[in-house]
Amino acid sequence: MKILLIGRGKMGRAIEETARADGDEVVLSLGRNDLDRLGNLGKVADVVIDFSRPEALSEVCAYVRRTKTPLLSGTTGYTAEELAALKSLGTAAPVLWSANYSLGVAVLVRALRAVSDVLKPDFDIEITETHHNQKADAPSGTAKALLEAIDPSHALTPVYGREGNCGRRGQNEVGIHALRGGTVAGTHTVHFFGVDEELEFTHRAASRQIFVGGALHMARLLPGKDAGVYDLQTILFGK
Amino acid sequence: MKILLIGRGKMGRAIEETARADGDEVVLSLGRNDLDRLGNLGKVADVVIDFSRPEALSEVCAYVRRTKTPLLSGTTGYTAEELAALKSLGTAAPVLWSANYSLGVAVLVRALRAVSDVLKPDFDIEITETHHNQKADAPSGTAKALLEAIDPSHALTPVYGREGNCGRRGQNEVGIHALRGGTVAGTHTVHFFGVDEELEFTHRAASRQIFVGGALHMARLLPGKDAGVYDLQTILFGK
Amino acid sequence: MKILLIGRGKMGRAIEETARADGDEVVLSLGRNDLDRLGNLGKVADVVIDFSRPEALSEVCAYVRRTKTPLLSGTTGYTAEELAALKSLGTAAPVLWSANYSLGVAVLVRALRAVSDVLKPDFDIEITETHHNQKADAPSGTAKALLEAIDPSHALTPVYGREGNCGRRGQNEVGIHALRGGTVAGTHTVHFFGVDEELEFTHRAASRQIFVGGALHMARLLPGKDAGVYDLQTILFGK
Amino acid sequence: MKILLIGRGKMGRAIEETARADGDEVVLSLGRNDLDRLGNLGKVADVVIDFSRPEALSEVCAYVRRTKTPLLSGTTGYTAEELAALKSLGTAAPVLWSANYSLGVAVLVRALRAVSDVLKPDFDIEITETHHNQKADAPSGTAKALLEAIDPSHALTPVYGREGNCGRRGQNEVGIHALRGGTVAGTHTVHFFGVDEELEFTHRAASRQIFVGGALHMARLLPGKDAGVYDLQTILFGK
Repeated sequence: MKILLIGRGKMGRAIEETARADGDEVVLSLGRNDLDRLGNLGKVADVVIDFSRPEALSEVCAYVRRTKTPLLSGTTGYTAEELAALKSLGTAAPVLWSANYSLGVAVLVRALRAVSDVLKPDFDIEITETHHNQKADAPSGTAKALLEAIDPSHALTPVYGREGNCGRRGQNEVGIHALRGGTVAGTHTVHFFGVDEELEFTHRAASRQIFVGGALHMARLLPGKDAGVYDLQTILFGK
Repeated sequence: MKILLIGRGKMGRAIEETARADGDEVVLSLGRNDLDRLGNLGKVADVVIDFSRPEALSEVCAYVRRTKTPLLSGTTGYTAEELAALKSLGTAAPVLWSANYSLGVAVLVRALRAVSDVLKPDFDIEITETHHNQKADAPSGTAKALLEAIDPSHALTPVYGREGNCGRRGQNEVGIHALRGGTVAGTHTVHFFGVDEELEFTHRAASRQIFVGGALHMARLLPGKDAGVYDLQTILFGK
Repeated sequence: MKILLIGRGKMGRAIEETARADGDEVVLSLGRNDLDRLGNLGKVADVVIDFSRPEALSEVCAYVRRTKTPLLSGTTGYTAEELAALKSLGTAAPVLWSANYSLGVAVLVRALRAVSDVLKPDFDIEITETHHNQKADAPSGTAKALLEAIDPSHALTPVYGREGNCGRRGQNEVGIHALRGGTVAGTHTVHFFGVDEELEFTHRAASRQIFVGGALHMARLLPGKDAGVYDLQTILFGK
Repeated sequence: MKILLIGRGKMGRAIEETARADGDEVVLSLGRNDLDRLGNLGKVADVVIDFSRPEALSEVCAYVRRTKTPLLSGTTGYTAEELAALKSLGTAAPVLWSANYSLGVAVLVRALRAVSDVLKPDFDIEITETHHNQKADAPSGTAKALLEAIDPSHALTPVYGREGNCGRRGQNEVGIHALRGGTVAGTHTVHFFGVDEELEFTHRAASRQIFVGGALHMARLLPGKDAGVYDLQTILFGK
């Protein structure tokens, strides 16, 4: 795979290093100071991978629209207008944007979408997420995404802890428990508790390298796709 | 729900007791000695639940075909011809047959079907199953069903243990590990190991009561369905 | 083992049934209305097992003091004075009292006592406990007992949930998370999170039968012990 | 802490880097080509940390004997005679040797020693260990060490897999199951299965960095100890 890489931050550099180790070719890697080189450039790569900043959006959009190179973007911080501009590229090329390129989390979301409706009438749902002791907010973005996959209509009421005489569990509760400790990169478990049986779906990340590997995995799937806007679910599962 | 129950074995009696506790009505319960009462009987129930023996097949078939009462069957030990005869009832009524009515296991099978193809190129798969210390065979029927859901084309090679200088893991191996101990009713975990991330899907049964609850759960879904042959996947997920 | 059983409540009846199934002999079983029979009774058993009510205390004490029969008591609801009276029997016979006879929980407490001091300087500790959806209070008594084993000097500050911008984890926090769902009999996990490694100690109960089995297990250890007051730790581990 | 470091291999370099990041001072770091500098050196450090090769033994021994500097050694590959020579240094200084400096594994060994004897009569024991797909042998050295902690008299019979009509579990069996997949650095679980309850003790390593952190942790405990030979159990738990 030939890659045109936009962004020389932590994620951009990690993608370049991993891509080369995997035998992919990074034909060009551009940082914020040399983005103007996109202006004269023809189609040189199978895919544009963009982990840069919102400021780079107009150059990236112009290039993709002109050369029809597939685009994978993990740039965050866009306004709603900017995101809409990015997605309008779907008329010219296959475009994939996600804030989280973990393949395992995308698959877990898929599994939850596949089974939650059948389980919800009879099973109680609780989510636990564990992260290192420096994380200052809770629950994690991934935990929120898992809840969204389970309960897209927001019929459940999140409960973030229980103490004292809290009473019996309400049928529409969903417990969300944030464990913090050590250097844990991220563990998420969705528990379904029924009558005399339970299901547990767990994703465990050993490092942030999974976002690099996941982005490269998805990038390989883009060339050859029809022009259009994709997310991880549509790119991996076709719908 | 009005139930016509065939079979007064352990499972039949458990279903009768649980159904009554749940507020369902068991209008008639027949054992092997009074099956001939089906001969004159009209449609008296919303569903026939049959946990009897293959010997009862002809009476049950005649009754279902004549009254068009939906049939849920958990009777095992049928020959291929008998099973075909049972399934031919699908022209007359909705017919559901399964050897295992655990809702949780059916859901786990669904989740595995939904995600295995995406994971297989990049993740190594291992299955662990745990049962009480009196179980004399391995792996469990449920573990085999989970493997079938993951690998219906039998492309993977099962490995049932590793010891000594066994060499690096082959890409097409699937480890299947049978733990035995105590009084465990049944725990199954499917592990997907990738680069710096892993997914674990676990089902844990606390007792065999789950098969009773699962059968009653499925029985409630049968009335109103079109005539035809169903399995747990089609009855729960529509395809 | 010959057992003199005091108490015909749920626990007393379960102990009688299990003891007989195990081949022990229940030589006499007394309920609240025939306790006066203890007055004339000599030593007839290897052990007195008492799961009755505080009201029975004086008869039980008189009997044990006179016959020097070892006593295992699981009666709860005693005042401090009553408990002191019970423990004063330790001059006459071996006396064991506990509010929870789970062997597995006692062992988990032992393991935590053995290792917590070494782990505490470098590992963050979080506890999760899971119970059925009808349990109305949190955390469980067992979770409190585990915390006491880890932190007998109460140097840690319990945190019962985290949400929003809660800031980095404090070094002296101990998270205690109560999951509720289904029919879970009781699962407890103590997590120790360090730098790039973690330890998890889990106890899982499949039913309340473990309290019956645990009491009988401890009862077998009492005869032959020196007179004195024991708890599960001293009876199992000698100190 | 002032460190005199012997060995410039992978482990030696990792220790140097981590020690400096932690604020420790590496006063001297010697590789195989400059070991002769030990000949004239006085006591310059609080501890000698040796992750080198057996060939360095005589220089290291002479230095420690002469300067009475505490020694932590993680060098492997010694013959029995060499190991005896190393341990004879215990007359001169505190000496700690271990093939595995994971604090968490040492603690798990301790917990198992504390509770196994009480559990063994009534609980069935099974061990699972998971490592990356490149590991070519099974079970892992750590799994063997855990078994040794549980069963020092070798009364149990290891079983490395179960398949087919393998019969009921023997009372003296201990199942040892090696899972292989992905990039897992090392996960070990000891399961104790009893009647209606189970205990699970798990250690999970996220990287090999735990050996570096563990060695530095132990090194800090050595200065001030009496001369003698220590292992991880005695250094951490005093006996």
